[in-house]
Amino acid sequence: MIFTKPTMLVDPNIAKKNLKAMWQKAIRHNLLFRPHFKTHQSGMIGAWYSELGIDKITVSSVDMAAYFTRFGWEDILIAFPVNINEMDIINKLAQQIKLSLTVLNIESVEYLAKHLSHEVDVYIKIDAGYKRTGVVWSNQDELQSLAHSINEKEKLNLKGILCHSGQTYKVHSVSEILHIHEESKYRMKKVQETLRSIKKDLLISIGDTPSCSLADNFEGVDEIRPGNFIFYDLQQYRLGACKLSDIAISVACPIVSMHGDRNEMVIYGGAVHFSKDSFLEGGRSIYGYAVILSDEGWIVPDNKMLLTKVSQEHGTISVNPEAFLEYKTGDFIGVLPAHACLTANLMKGYVDPDGARYDHLAGK
Amino acid sequence: MIFTKPTMLVDPNIAKKNLKAMWQKAIRHNLLFRPHFKTHQSGMIGAWYSELGIDKITVSSVDMAAYFTRFGWEDILIAFPVNINEMDIINKLAQQIKLSLTVLNIESVEYLAKHLSHEVDVYIKIDAGYKRTGVVWSNQDELQSLAHSINEKEKLNLKGILCHSGQTYKVHSVSEILHIHEESKYRMKKVQETLRSIKKDLLISIGDTPSCSLADNFEGVDEIRPGNFIFYDLQQYRLGACKLSDIAISVACPIVSMHGDRNEMVIYGGAVHFSKDSFLEGGRSIYGYAVILSDEGWIVPDNKMLLTKVSQEHGTISVNPEAFLEYKTGDFIGVLPAHACLTANLMKGYVDPDGARYDHLAGK
Repeated sequence: MIFTKPTMLVDPNIAKKNLKAMWQKAIRHNLLFRPHFKTHQSGMIGAWYSELGIDKITVSSVDMAAYFTRFGWEDILIAFPVNINEMDIINKLAQQIKLSLTVLNIESVEYLAKHLSHEVDVYIKIDAGYKRTGVVWSNQDELQSLAHSINEKEKLNLKGILCHSGQTYKVHSVSEILHIHEESKYRMKKVQETLRSIKKDLLISIGDTPSCSLADNFEGVDEIRPGNFIFYDLQQYRLGACKLSDIAISVACPIVSMHGDRNEMVIYGGAVHFSKDSFLEGGRSIYGYAVILSDEGWIVPDNKMLLTKVSQEHGTISVNPEAFLEYKTGDFIGVLPAHACLTANLMKGYVDPDGARYDHLAGK
Repeated sequence: MIFTKPTMLVDPNIAKKNLKAMWQKAIRHNLLFRPHFKTHQSGMIGAWYSELGIDKITVSSVDMAAYFTRFGWEDILIAFPVNINEMDIINKLAQQIKLSLTVLNIESVEYLAKHLSHEVDVYIKIDAGYKRTGVVWSNQDELQSLAHSINEKEKLNLKGILCHSGQTYKVHSVSEILHIHEESKYRMKKVQETLRSIKKDLLISIGDTPSCSLADNFEGVDEIRPGNFIFYDLQQYRLGACKLSDIAISVACPIVSMHGDRNEMVIYGGAVHFSKDSFLEGGRSIYGYAVILSDEGWIVPDNKMLLTKVSQEHGTISVNPEAFLEYKTGDFIGVLPAHACLTANLMKGYVDPDGARYDHLAGK
C-alpha cells in the first residue's frame, strides 16, 4: 500500500481472533459479555462484534453512546459517572435504546429522577480498590442509602454494580493482576451482599482487560466489560496480558531523517499521533516498538526498535546499527503503540492491509 | 455560559496581549516575525495575527500548510523535515503560495529537485544542541555539501538556517534558558560563517518560546518563530517564560464525582482532552491547575488545585478541604493545561467568554 503520512493500520485477522477468544471465554464462564467500545470507537469495527451475535456494549461518554446508537446498537451502558449537564441527550438516548447509566451519589440520582423522561437501567459504580471514583466497597451505609434512593425512583431500575480495577495497569506481574482480580471479586460480592436486602440479584460487572485476559476464575461475576483486548498494545504486553503478535494495530510513519552517528531515525509521528502515554523499559520512557511493514501488515523484528522520544510531530526511533542500514529517508516504518486507546483516538481512523478504511468517532 | 461537556475556553484579551508583546519585541529587535501556528491551529485565531500586519507564518506539517493556505496565508514555512511522500500536495502549495521547506540531507534535496514543479525557498535544519534532528552545527563538511547541493538546484532557493532549541524545555531556571539561547546563537552564527562562501546572508531563524520570551539579546538572529506564546501553558509558567495570568486557555470540565474522604473531585476531562503531558511538582506528575470559572473567563485561586491523575475520560483534582466545600457534582471547573499545543489539538476548537467559537484544524 502507498501512504503519504502517518496512517493507522489495523489487522482484522488479529483483532477478530482477539475478539473471538474473549467472547468464547465469556461464554465458557457463563458471563454476560458487554465489551467496551472506547478503544476502537469505530462503527465499522463494531460490526465485527455484532456478526458474532454480541448485542450489549459499554462506552465511556454520552457522545460515544449517541454515536453507536446511530450504528444500530440498542443496549448501551455508559460506564462513566453520569454527567447531569448532558440531560437532553441522555433523555433522547433513553427514548431510543435500552440505556444503562452509572451513578455514584444521591445528588445525581435525585437529579436524574427529576429530569429523566424515560426509564433507564442503573449500575452503581463501586471503588473496589482503584481509588479513582465510585462508592468505596466497604462503605455499607453509603451503599445502602444510594441503593434505597435509586429503588424509590420510578424511572431508575437498579440493575447492577460495576467496578474497574485499573490498578492492574500499575503492577509488574501476572500474579499481582490475579491477586487484584480475586480481591475485586471478593469486594464486589461483599457489596452484592450488603445490598441484597434492597435488591436481589444485582449484576456484578467487572471490566479491565488484564484481569479478563489472564484470569480463569470468574465465580460470582455476572458480566465482563473489557475493551482494550480487541487491539491490545505494549502496555498489555508488558503486563503479560497478550503476546506481541496479538497486537492488532500499528501506525505506519514516514522516516524524515536518519542519524547514523547515534543510530536514530526521526519519523513523522509524534505526540499528536501516539499521545504521550509510555512505559518504562531499561530506565527510559518508551512510546512504542517499531515494526517492519509488509504487504500483509507488519512483522515484529528480532531486535527491538524503540520509539524513545516524541514531541508534537516528531518521533525518534533507536535501532541497532544493522537495522539502521535497512532504512532511508522517505521509507515507512510501523510503530506498535504503548496505548492503543489514546493512539486510535488521535489517529481518527484505520486502514487494513486490503486498503479498506474504518471510521473512528474522533474523525467525525 | 452554559456548557454540557469539556469545552476549551480561550481568552482573546490575554492571547492578543501575548501576541502584541512578542510582535513588538520582534520589531524592537529588528527581527522577522514568523510565528508558529502549530499551537492554535486555528484559521480564525490566525486572523488576530494578520490584523497586526503579520504576513509570514510557520507550521509543522504539510496538512497545516494547506489549511492555512485556505485561510489566505501566502508565505508559509513548514518547519519540519520534508516528507518526500507528500510531494503532490507540496507541489500544489508551491504553486499557490510562497512556500519554504526544511531540509537536512542530500537525498531529500535530490528528490525535491527531481519532483518539484515550482520554486520553493529552503531552510537547512541545524541541530544546535537539541539532538532531535538536523545537521549538527559543527559538521562543516556535511553543511557545505548540503548547501552546495541545494545551490545547484534550479527550483530550490537556499534562504536560511533554522534551529529549534527544545532543550530549553528541560531545564529548571531562566539562566539556563538564557545560556542555551546564547549557545544556540553562537552555533548558528558559526554555521552561517561556514556557509558564507556558498551563500551570503543566510537567514538565521530560531524558534522556541522560552528563549523568545526571556531573552533580550538577539544579535545576529534574523527571524524568530515562537508559537506557544500565544496561549502559554503551565510548562512555560514553570520555566519562568510567563505568568499564570498570561495563560490564555483553560478547559471547562464538569465535576462528576466528589470524594470528601480524600478532598478529590473527579471530572469529565482526561487524556483525550488534556493529553498525558505533565510536569513534576512535589514529586508528583501534574497535568494541570484547576481554576475558578467566571463570566469573564477564569480566576486563578490563591490555593493550588491540582490535576493529579488522568485516564481516558477521567481526571482527578486534588484540593484543600475549604475549596472542596465550594463544589458539587454537576458544577464546572476550569483547568489550565500542562501543554497548550497538545490540549488544543485534542479539544479541536475554542469558545471565548462572549460565546464566539474558533475553529481548529483537528476539528475539520
